[in-house]
Amino acid sequence: MRAARYYDRKDLRIEEIEEPELKTGHVAIDVAWAGICGSDLHEYLEGPITIPAAGSPHPISGESAPIVLGHEFSGTITAVADDVEDLSPGQPVVIEPYIIGDDVPTDDPDVDYQLSPNMNFIGLGGRGGGFSEKVVVQRPWVHPISDNVGLDKAALIEPLAVGYHAYRKSRAQAGNVALIGGAGPIGLLTAAVLKAKGLTVYISELSEGRKAKARETGVADQVFDPREVSIADEIRRLTDGAGADVAFECTSVAAVLDTLIDAVRPGGVVVNVSIWGHKPEVNLQSLVLKEVELIGSAAYAHDHPAVIEMVEDGEIDLAPFITGKIGLDELVSQGFDQLINNNDEHVKILVDPRA
Amino acid sequence: MRAARYYDRKDLRIEEIEEPELKTGHVAIDVAWAGICGSDLHEYLEGPITIPAAGSPHPISGESAPIVLGHEFSGTITAVADDVEDLSPGQPVVIEPYIIGDDVPTDDPDVDYQLSPNMNFIGLGGRGGGFSEKVVVQRPWVHPISDNVGLDKAALIEPLAVGYHAYRKSRAQAGNVALIGGAGPIGLLTAAVLKAKGLTVYISELSEGRKAKARETGVADQVFDPREVSIADEIRRLTDGAGADVAFECTSVAAVLDTLIDAVRPGGVVVNVSIWGHKPEVNLQSLVLKEVELIGSAAYAHDHPAVIEMVEDGEIDLAPFITGKIGLDELVSQGFDQLINNNDEHVKILVDPRA
Ligand SMILES: NC(=O)c1ccc[n+]([C@@H]2O[C@H](COP(=O)([O-])OP(=O)(O)OC[C@H]3O[C@@H](n4cnc5c(N)ncnc54)[C@H](O)[C@@H]3O)[C@@H](O)[C@H]2O)c1
Ligand SMILES: NC(=O)c1ccc[n+]([C@@H]2O[C@H](COP(=O)([O-])OP(=O)(O)OC[C@H]3O[C@@H](n4cnc5c(N)ncnc54)[C@H](O)[C@@H]3O)[C@@H](O)[C@H]2O)c1
Ligand SMILES: [Zn+2]
Ligand SMILES: [Zn+2]
Repeated sequence: MRAARYYDRKDLRIEEIEEPELKTGHVAIDVAWAGICGSDLHEYLEGPITIPAAGSPHPISGESAPIVLGHEFSGTITAVADDVEDLSPGQPVVIEPYIIGDDVPTDDPDVDYQLSPNMNFIGLGGRGGGFSEKVVVQRPWVHPISDNVGLDKAALIEPLAVGYHAYRKSRAQAGNVALIGGAGPIGLLTAAVLKAKGLTVYISELSEGRKAKARETGVADQVFDPREVSIADEIRRLTDGAGADVAFECTSVAAVLDTLIDAVRPGGVVVNVSIWGHKPEVNLQSLVLKEVELIGSAAYAHDHPAVIEMVEDGEIDLAPFITGKIGLDELVSQGFDQLINNNDEHVKILVDPRA
Repeated sequence: MRAARYYDRKDLRIEEIEEPELKTGHVAIDVAWAGICGSDLHEYLEGPITIPAAGSPHPISGESAPIVLGHEFSGTITAVADDVEDLSPGQPVVIEPYIIGDDVPTDDPDVDYQLSPNMNFIGLGGRGGGFSEKVVVQRPWVHPISDNVGLDKAALIEPLAVGYHAYRKSRAQAGNVALIGGAGPIGLLTAAVLKAKGLTVYISELSEGRKAKARETGVADQVFDPREVSIADEIRRLTDGAGADVAFECTSVAAVLDTLIDAVRPGGVVVNVSIWGHKPEVNLQSLVLKEVELIGSAAYAHDHPAVIEMVEDGEIDLAPFITGKIGLDELVSQGFDQLINNNDEHVKILVDPRA
């Protein structure tokens, strides 16, 4: 079958590899669509980061580069192992792309399995990936979806789960006011969750294309540009001086984090979703004097069922966030390069591994 | 009466001033003992910071330098206003030294009055202070204590309330493991609260005197020096690899904060008690990947009754934290200068404004 494999920085190869074999406890899936994620770009430009480099096998998967890429994907079941009794061929599914130690009780709702030692992702740490025709996945990471979702939109359920998890970590309630820093895929999908949950959502963003996307999709009540207004003053003006209840850092820019700390009310919550390549300087004096809670949010855990239900029920429409559809051969030229050079025209580009 | 008044940086004068007058809703108190706080030293060396400078009156108190210093104090009631019916002359009391706007409903338990606009402290922002013979305080900030506490120890209830508030913000439970960065007065008194609440307490500290104090008083199960061991590794070793449940930053040193983020378990809580004169670089990548919650803790609110009860019940013995007793004339020579130059031999120096 065809697959995109990561060998090393700037060395991604579309090649013929062996099909994965169905094993006990596993489900075989024909991939339908796989989204390109910012992490894929980071691995391409600056990696290997999360990907185990050639010769350094991952402690759980035992694999190292070359590694099949793609962790945001949907597909259709083609076969299930004998011991998998609750799924059947033909079912549309999305993958929660985890590689987690066998000793972690991932079905215990109190277990934060996303924080378990050596956690990695299918499509980064081994076990196949979405940028290939077929994949074989352990039963717990396969989530059936109803036919009405659409397999293209379903590929966005993974980043949507990142936003949903951040929403849960924030303890936000309907009626609260939220401020999001950044309207990239993560900021926009977080906004979509918050809007569906009944919050008022304000977004701060620099790029014209993304400001427009946040407005058109209706996920933000208002969108501001930090070069035009003082975001924190604006939020206070809109909340009778109080400040936002919750805020979400989705830019990886230290100045934005400080703006969020400034813009939340005393006792407010700032959820840090960003990944940081450096240690940012943070206005902790403001955090202390206002008793702000700064909470890290990592991926997702036990979130997929609720997220899928929101999408199935039409509470969130993922269609407007798909800004491109390409074939596997175009992965770099029409995918990675587009996102690197024309980032602000795009949210999510989907790859059809069969085209 | 005699009082120590702050005029400006390095300009503190012991002088004769007028006695404050009893007013409606107020209580007149003869000060017994007043503790010297790190904030007093900061105001002396680098201020005015919290103190309203001469000519810039505080928006609530209307006062500016010269200002009577001292916000950690106990005393005996000498008179109460006609409308104060639940207190009487002769009662020993401690002061919760707040200056808060009249529009803030401070008796509502859901109101975080410590976060209200322009909040300041008696003994920093006006309304008299502990480094004077007499003070007149609004009824809500006067907390009666039982005779058995001792007015000297009672002067430490204010910083103890800082530790208690930090404990509450941490949501720590009996049986949890706590790590405290710094065994200054705040770190030690936070440790005393945690120990009384049934936690296992580890402390990281550099100074010999303070390490010894943490050990002698029994507030720490173990004390470590970061120059001798890797604190985070040591905490993991002591917790079967898990990490601490909660940690408290009481040093104002960025490297210590990173150590605490490293030393807590995934999903753990770090309470930031420190005041920061600069913006520290923080390892937010670790905060995100471990989903750590970094929570600011500012002073106290609704905490004094519980803190007083702990002291009255003998759950916390404050005596070992009193390391000096001086008269008002010695405030600088035997108080401030001692704490600035021999910090590690001292925890709390108490001032008798009548001696
Ligand atoms: N915590 C997790 O589990 C998780 C999962 C996926 C992604 N992430 C991280 O979330 C972050 C966002 O991901 P993304 O794919 O949306 O990234 P992105 O780079 O596509 O989006 C960031 C957006 O922030 C905007 N921005 C930059 N500077 C700004 C400023 N000063 N003010 C306002 N907006 C500004 C950019 O214009 C851009 O639209 C990244 O750090 C990513 O690594 C975290
Ligand atoms: N949040 C609040 O309401 C509140 C109230 C009072 C004080 N504070 C703040 O709390 C902090 C502590 O106050 P304090 O009076 O105890 O201060 P302190 O300076 O007396 O104590 C700090 C301690 O940290 C130790 N230390 C320094 N570097 C260290 C390192 N690398 N590792 C381990 N220990 C180290 C010092 O030896 C010292 O004993 C200060 O920042 C103070 O301003 C906050
Ligand atoms: Zn991703
Ligand atoms: Zn103080």
